[in-house]
Amino acid sequence: MRWRLVLEYDGRDFIGWGLQPKGRSIQGVVEQALESLLGHPTRVRASGRTDTGVHALGQVITLDTGVSRSPKAMVSGMNHHLPLDVACVAADVVPDDWDPRWQSREKHYRYVWLRRLARSPLRQDRVYHVTCALDVDRMNRAVQALAGTHDFTTFRASGCGAKSTVRTIPFWAVTDHGDEVHLDVRGNGFLRHMIRIVAGTLTDIGRGAEPEDLLETALLARDRDVAGPTAPACGLTLMSVLYDGD
Amino acid sequence: MRWRLVLEYDGRDFIGWGLQPKGRSIQGVVEQALESLLGHPTRVRASGRTDTGVHALGQVITLDTGVSRSPKAMVSGMNHHLPLDVACVAADVVPDDWDPRWQSREKHYRYVWLRRLARSPLRQDRVYHVTCALDVDRMNRAVQALAGTHDFTTFRASGCGAKSTVRTIPFWAVTDHGDEVHLDVRGNGFLRHMIRIVAGTLTDIGRGAEPEDLLETALLARDRDVAGPTAPACGLTLMSVLYDGD
Repeated sequence: MRWRLVLEYDGRDFIGWGLQPKGRSIQGVVEQALESLLGHPTRVRASGRTDTGVHALGQVITLDTGVSRSPKAMVSGMNHHLPLDVACVAADVVPDDWDPRWQSREKHYRYVWLRRLARSPLRQDRVYHVTCALDVDRMNRAVQALAGTHDFTTFRASGCGAKSTVRTIPFWAVTDHGDEVHLDVRGNGFLRHMIRIVAGTLTDIGRGAEPEDLLETALLARDRDVAGPTAPACGLTLMSVLYDGD
Repeated sequence: MRWRLVLEYDGRDFIGWGLQPKGRSIQGVVEQALESLLGHPTRVRASGRTDTGVHALGQVITLDTGVSRSPKAMVSGMNHHLPLDVACVAADVVPDDWDPRWQSREKHYRYVWLRRLARSPLRQDRVYHVTCALDVDRMNRAVQALAGTHDFTTFRASGCGAKSTVRTIPFWAVTDHGDEVHLDVRGNGFLRHMIRIVAGTLTDIGRGAEPEDLLETALLARDRDVAGPTAPACGLTLMSVLYDGD
C-alpha cells in the first residue's frame, strides 16, 4: 500500500532533506520514525529536496508498507515517533504508481525578509533579517522578468546537477507585509539555490544598490556572476505542493 | 537620563521577567547586556512581569544612565550584547519621572490556540496545541461576560500578591484565524495567571465540555475552583503596552 504524507519541518537543525553519510537529515529522521511505527525498514521519496536550513509547511512524501493503519493513526503515530522539529500533518493512501515528484503540478515557495533595525527573537531562523529599507514595488516589477519559460543557468548553484536548465515558472510576486517582505514563487521544477539567488539579487535591487533590470540582464547573460549573492536559507519555506485533482 | 526600551523575547528558555535567586530571567540578561554596553551596573523597571514561558513582542522597560548614546546606537548596542532570544526593538529618552508601569494606559495580550491533529514544528512553544474542535463564536460570546470592571478573584493564581482583585478590562475578543484561534485582551492591570485561567476555561467552553456561561458563573462565584484549568504559558504573548500620547 502506498501512503502519501504531508510534512512540516523547521529546517534549522538539519543538513537538508536528503540522506547524507554524515549529519542529521529530514529524510533520515522520517525513515527512522517510520521504522519504529511500522516495524520494518522504510524508504521514502519526496516531491523534491530542500537545502540545509530551509523550512517546509507542506513537503509531500510517499512510502510503501503492508502494515494497515487509519490515516488518523498514521498522523498521530508519526508525530509520536518524530522529533519535535518535524511533524506529519496529513496522510492518505494513493495508487501504487503515484509519484510525489513526477506527478506534482506546482510547488509554492515563499522567501521572507524581515526589514527593521532589530533582529527578531520570535522569528529567529525563520526570516532573512536586513536593516536597510526595501523598495517592494521595485522588487516586484524587477522579478516579473523571470515569469515564464527561460534558461535559468544564471540562477543555479555550482553543484547543481540538473541536465536541463530550462524551467517554466509562471508566478513570481513580491509583496509588502508590514515589517516583512514576501517573495512568492509558484512553478514546477527549480534549480539548486535558484530562489535564494533570485532573493539575494532582489535584496540588492530593493535597497537601490543595483538597477531595476538586473534580474533581466542576469537572466539573459546566463552567467552566475552577473546575479547577486545567494540569500540565506533560513528565509525560505516550501509552502505546498499541488497535484492534479487537489 | 531615563531611557525607555521596547523588548521582544521568546519566553521559552526563561523563568520569566523578574530576577530570581536561581534561573535565567529576562531582567537578568537585559541588565547584564546594559552593564556591558554602558559600563556600569544598571537596574531596569518593566511595565509588568511576564511568567515563565510567556513571550513578548512589546514589553516596555526603563533604565537610568549618564552615558550618552543615540537611540539607534542604543538599539544596535543592546542587540549586540543580548542573547538571541531577547532583542531591543526601539529606544527613546523619556522624562526622568516617567514610569513604565504606573503610566501605562493599556496592555494588549494575545493568547493563541493551534487547533489541528498534528503539532506544529514551526510554531512549537508559540501556541497551545489542542486536537479538539473549538467553537469560536461560542468562546467569543462567553468571554464578553468579563468585559468591564469586576472582582476577578476567581481568575488569579494562588501565589498572586495583588492587594485588590478588582480590575477594569474593557476588551476581550476570540477570533478565528484558520488553524489558529486568538484571544485578544486589552486592559490595564491583570492578576497573576488571569488570562491563562480564562484561556483554559474558554478551551473547555469551546470544545463543548462546559456550558457557555461558565465564565460568568465562575466570575460571580469568586472561587478559583469553579473556573477551568490554567492554559499553558507558551500560548501567551504580551503584544504591546500603550501610553498617553502614543
